[in-house]
Formats: sequence, C-alpha cells, structure tokens
Amino acid sequence: MDVFETKDKYLKVLKERSTLPEGFKTAVQAFEFFPVEREVIEPMKMNMTLIELEKPTEAFAGVFTRNAFPGYPVEIGRHLLNEEKVSGVLINNRISNVRCQNGRETALNITEKLAEIRQRKHPYFPSSTGIIGWKLPEQVMLKHLNPLSDKLNDDPILSAAEAIMTTDAFPKVRSIEFEGGRICAIAKGAGMIEPDMATMLVFILTDIDIKRDELRALFSPLINRTFNRISIDSDQSTSDTALIFSSGLKPCSSLSAFEDALQTVCLSLSEDIVRNGEGTSHLIRVTVSEADTVDEATALGKALINSPLTKTAIFGNDPNVGRFLQAMGDYLGGNGVSIDPEKIEISIGGHIVYHGGVFTLDGEKEKKLSNYMKDCSFVNSEGFPPHEQSVDMNIKLGRGSCGSQVLGSDLTYDYVRENADYRT
Amino acid sequence: MDVFETKDKYLKVLKERSTLPEGFKTAVQAFEFFPVEREVIEPMKMNMTLIELEKPTEAFAGVFTRNAFPGYPVEIGRHLLNEEKVSGVLINNRISNVRCQNGRETALNITEKLAEIRQRKHPYFPSSTGIIGWKLPEQVMLKHLNPLSDKLNDDPILSAAEAIMTTDAFPKVRSIEFEGGRICAIAKGAGMIEPDMATMLVFILTDIDIKRDELRALFSPLINRTFNRISIDSDQSTSDTALIFSSGLKPCSSLSAFEDALQTVCLSLSEDIVRNGEGTSHLIRVTVSEADTVDEATALGKALINSPLTKTAIFGNDPNVGRFLQAMGDYLGGNGVSIDPEKIEISIGGHIVYHGGVFTLDGEKEKKLSNYMKDCSFVNSEGFPPHEQSVDMNIKLGRGSCGSQVLGSDLTYDYVRENADYRT
Repeated sequence: MDVFETKDKYLKVLKERSTLPEGFKTAVQAFEFFPVEREVIEPMKMNMTLIELEKPTEAFAGVFTRNAFPGYPVEIGRHLLNEEKVSGVLINNRISNVRCQNGRETALNITEKLAEIRQRKHPYFPSSTGIIGWKLPEQVMLKHLNPLSDKLNDDPILSAAEAIMTTDAFPKVRSIEFEGGRICAIAKGAGMIEPDMATMLVFILTDIDIKRDELRALFSPLINRTFNRISIDSDQSTSDTALIFSSGLKPCSSLSAFEDALQTVCLSLSEDIVRNGEGTSHLIRVTVSEADTVDEATALGKALINSPLTKTAIFGNDPNVGRFLQAMGDYLGGNGVSIDPEKIEISIGGHIVYHGGVFTLDGEKEKKLSNYMKDCSFVNSEGFPPHEQSVDMNIKLGRGSCGSQVLGSDLTYDYVRENADYRT
Repeated sequence: MDVFETKDKYLKVLKERSTLPEGFKTAVQAFEFFPVEREVIEPMKMNMTLIELEKPTEAFAGVFTRNAFPGYPVEIGRHLLNEEKVSGVLINNRISNVRCQNGRETALNITEKLAEIRQRKHPYFPSSTGIIGWKLPEQVMLKHLNPLSDKLNDDPILSAAEAIMTTDAFPKVRSIEFEGGRICAIAKGAGMIEPDMATMLVFILTDIDIKRDELRALFSPLINRTFNRISIDSDQSTSDTALIFSSGLKPCSSLSAFEDALQTVCLSLSEDIVRNGEGTSHLIRVTVSEADTVDEATALGKALINSPLTKTAIFGNDPNVGRFLQAMGDYLGGNGVSIDPEKIEISIGGHIVYHGGVFTLDGEKEKKLSNYMKDCSFVNSEGFPPHEQSVDMNIKLGRGSCGSQVLGSDLTYDYVRENADYRT
C-alpha cells in the first residue's frame, strides 16, 4: 500500500510503472479546435493518443460497454474483434462520438487515414471519450495525424495516460513484471465529475506471448471480476472499453500465472479509477461472503455501495449501520431472496455492528468507527491520491459458500457541485 | 394545480382537505423521553398518534415494505391482516422499532394495553418510524396511552398529519368527496433527509362502504400504480406501510368510481411525498410510452430518475440529454432489452431533444430548456411547497403500446449535507 505525500512523488512512482513492454510505441498530439455545435469564444483542446504495435498482432481482445446506446467507436470496435490482425488504437478525449450525424463514417475516415499514413494494412481501433452527442472535429483531427505519427516513441506510457484524461483527477498507470516481460495498463474515468466524460477506457499492453484464443477466453471473465465490480455512478457509459494487446515477444511458461498477474494489474487499476474522482473522499470496499452464488454476492455488494444513503453516510464518517441494513434489505426483498436476519453478520473496519438479528453498536463503538472512517478519508484535489486506505465493510450472509468484493465511492458535495454545475 | 404563497395559505388549504370521514376519531399525545441507547442531555420528543374507528371494521387492507429486514410493526401488521376486525392504528415517530431486542413484544404490549384502555376486543395496528435499531421507550409510551385516549376527537386530521412527521418539510393531506362521503389520506416520508426516518407511512380513511374483499383486491395494485412509482433514494425502507380503513357508513354505487377517486388521492399524495424533502428542488415526472409492458416502462422510468447523473443535471437546470440517454441505455443494455436507437424519441417540457437516432439539441433549445427547469424549481425550507410544477420528460420507446409514469426528485447539496451530517 503506497502513501504519496506530494504530486511529484506520485508522478515519480507512476513513471517507474510506465516502462513500455517491448514491441510498442506511443505518441500524443495536442491541438485546439472550434466545435460546430456551439459558439465558443475560446477554442477547445483535444489530445489524440496513439498506441501502436511495432508489428500488427493477432493476439488482442476487447470488452465493451453493455449500454444499449453505444458510441460509434464501440460499434466499430466490436467488428474489429473479427480482424485477423490489428495495428493499435487511436484515442481522443473531449468528444465521445455518440449519437451524432455520420459519427461512424468520421471514426472510420480518421483511423483509415492513420493506417494509410502509417502504411499499415491492418486497422486501428478508434476510441473516443468526452461530450456525448457532439461531432468529432474530423478535418482538424485528420490534419494532426501526420505530426502524431512523427512523434511515435518508446518513452514511458505516462504521457499517454495523461493525454487520455478528461476530468480525471490524476493519471492512472499500473504494471507488473512477468517472466522477463511485463504487463502495463493505463485507464481513464470513471464517473464523479462531468459524467458525460465518465467513460472508462482501459488499455493493456504486454509483451508476454499469449495466443489470441487464450487471451480472449480469459479476458472477459477477468474484466468481470475487476473493472465490472467497481461502481461510482452505477451507470455504464455509452463508450466503456477495455482493450488488451500482446506483442508476443516474450515466452510465457504458465497461462494461469499470467492470468494472476493480469488480475493484479486490473484490480489495482480499478481501485485507482474509484479513487480518481475529485468528488470522492472515501474508497469503499464491500466484501460479501457466505452467499449462495458469486452473482448474488456481487449484486448485493453493488446494491449496498450504490445506495445514496450508504454513500452519504460514509462521506459523513457516520457508521450508520441502520442504513446499510436497509439498503441490503431493499435489494434482497426486492429480488425475492429469502434470508434469515438472525444469520447475517455485518462488520466495519473489523468491528461487528450487526449480529444475531440485532444491531450491536453502542456509543463507544460508534465513535471508534467514525474515527476509522475519518482516517480512511482523503481529498485529492491536488492531483494525486494521498493514500490507498479504504473503508472495509464485511457482510456474512450465512447462506452458502460464495463471495465477492466490490469497490465504490462516497457521495459528496463536490460530486453534486461538479455534476450540477459543469455545463450551465 | 395549486400555488401557495405562504405557509399559512398552505395550512389553510390542508385544513380544508382534513375533514374526517364519518366514523373516525383521532388523537395526538406529545411527550419527552430519554433513550436507553445513548446518553443525551436534552430529552428527545415523541408523538403518539391514534386513528380509531368508532366501531371496529372488517373493511381494511394493508400493503407493507418488501424490504427483507422489516420492522416489528410491519411483521405484526402482516399478521393482523388476518383478523376479523380491527379498531385502528397507533403511530409513533422518532424510533422505528427495527432489529432491536424484544421489539416485537414491546409493540404488542403497547397496542394491547391501548385496546384494554379503549375496551376494544379488536386490535390496533402498531406503526413506528424513526431511528433504526433503537428501542421504543415502552414504559413512557404505556404511561401516555391514557391521556392519548382521553384526547380522541373528530377535529380535522391535519394535527395527526403533523404529528406523524419526522423530518418531513411539511404535513401532507389529500382528500376527495365521493357520493356523499369522502376519502381522506395522510402521509409521512420519504427519503431525502435523515433517511433512517424516511419510512413512508400512508393512512387512508373513508366512510364509503367497500367490502373487505373488494378493498383488498384493488388496494395492492393501486399502491403499485401510485406510491410504488415514486423514487427518492431508490430504497424501500424497513417500515414502509400503507393502510386503508372503511367505516362503511356511506353506500357506494360504483366500485370502479371509488377506485378512480382513491387513485386520485394516492397520486397527489405521492407527489407531495416527493416534493416534501428539504433537499428536493425539482419534482421530475417521467412518462414512458410505447413500451412492450407496463413493467418495462416503469423500470426504465425508475432507472432514469434514480440515476445520480440525471438527478444532479436537473438540480443544475441542465437539459443534459446525453446523460439521460446514457442512464436509459445502461438499464436497457444491462437488462438485455434490445432496442432500436432510431425509434426512440425523448422530449423535455414539450421540446424534442432526441429523435431519429441522434440528438436534436442546439444552443437555443438548450437555453429554453434550462429556463424551463429553473421555472420548475423550488425550495421549501419554509415548510410549504410553493407550487406544484414538475420537470416533465417523455420517452417514446417505439416498441409497443404500454406506458407508465414515475416521479422522482433531484440530487442537491442539501441532500448530501442533511444525509452526511445528521448524526456525527
């Protein structure tokens, strides 16, 4: 568990994490544009970020949002999963390319032009995040593809992690060494402020040689166990995307060891995402055990961390177990799960607060728990996460032998301010 | 649609609505007590409110929370539905009698003592709202049953509507004349501030003669169409209760006309409940049409009004249709509803903002809609609702011929402040 006293220290650690796996290059091009949708006096700023494989790879996989109104890059991306090989991914921030005129054509025009410039016959994934409903500034983006291409380098991926940010509080990079190679992942999002831009984008690069079929078999369940167990706004955005590419340059002796390493990277990156919003002041970790199924445990945990009553209580450092039980009871009752209230046990930060059918809180324990929550709180307005503490809640259901862990955030003034005020 | 310039004017209208149907009496007893759970310097205040039928009735019905951890009064109430006749209901605020030692015995001791004092062989429903997990002050409550009994009167029900409040911003009464008799209903709750106390309690009295079986057949679906289509915190509390009693003194010529009248009362009372929280600054009314089933329409509407992104946008008077589409898409995609984005139409306050698969907002329309939302906003910290305007959103799904309307509230600073700060 890391503690960061300053932004510089955080960025230093991030840079250490940022070494590119072999076989990749990245580039960032920043520019200004005037949107067609609104009259603006100042131009808006956009970054295009290119992640490219030195040689096109057939070892790639993707998981996309299940939102019924996906962005055009998601629609195109789903198609590209059928390609024999791909060359990389081109990401832009600022505008998300969802539900606007000719959005599909625009995305294809830009990535096809990029392939032409890069003299690649295998395509690039498009990936966009930002305002929903506006058009990409196609002509401006086309013009900046050549300078972008010229900038490709093998510097640390930190600059790419910074360039894909929209309103993220800080860049997010996680990596792990594995059998002489490495896995390196960056992410942006999700939620909290300017949720139009709350798309979660995750790009994972590795030089470990994993075959396409193996990668695809493990990737989707692994995303389910990691990024799909975090919840901030409870919504899946129209553009959520996770892509993984292998350059295949380093042999892999154990697929399951690789899967473990990848899961470690994804879990810590998903924690960073929850911690990342300016509105967040607590990371909440709910562990549900003794459930009948993993799905039941996950759904109950999510119901608890999505309840506004839970979220505001934890913001207020209030161990208000009455609310927690109410939120759980609402989910269980509403979904027809019959449960014996006598068998449930709830503990917070190691202290049992509900047991044998009744609350076991007293004034002293309440004070202790409130202090525990205060110790776990943070503000990160200075662009780095000060520590990695979480408010830990454990729920034993007394039903079965399955469990799950979910991560969420509290509900704060800043959340409301940023979400209510950002456009008008 | 009423507009209230002052609290006095609101209370005057409420008093006019408050005439008791024939065959009922009410009483309120206020007192102080020291809770056993916490050392407090000042005593706490509690009201006991009695609603009594002059003659026990067999024409009564009840609908209770589906929360998996119901309060003891809910457990007892479910049982009492099997009684041949009941005498009325005894309500207390301040402590909700959920998951504490001997809570069931306490509730029974108090209502049985009341029956003894009132010389009734038919029981009273217990009903409690307030802090979860604390014990009722049984001895103090028993002591105050005699003075409560002595106060029974046929004054307007407004004083009962005030006495059952916990942190409600204002009392809530609705009534309707019907064939020489009347239906009169009061409610407390729900949500917004001090959600431990956010239980929704609804008590409906009528002198219209409806048989027990008929009443029970219509009551539960009617509650589903009214009170169960509002959503503030998205949680059902551990104690939500709706009870209806008929004194049977006035003949009824048409059951379906009675049902219509009752629905009118319940709909307007459910709007009052949404409008009632101090944190609320907009009432949101979502009408979903062209759905395959009513349940689909209701669920989609609720997903939309429960999304924090929708709620904060409307608080900020921001017609942020990108968020609204995202929240809908998250629900539809997550629940496997396949939908054609081209067929959906979204309008706000009569203005079409999404049509033919793309957003149809421009700067001018956005300004208009923002002003519309400003006009619909209100603050009610002075204890009355200034008007009854709502932000109206219409969603046409282009799938079928079913529809539903749901009501929700926005998400404001006050919501967070009150929910985060009220205990610690």
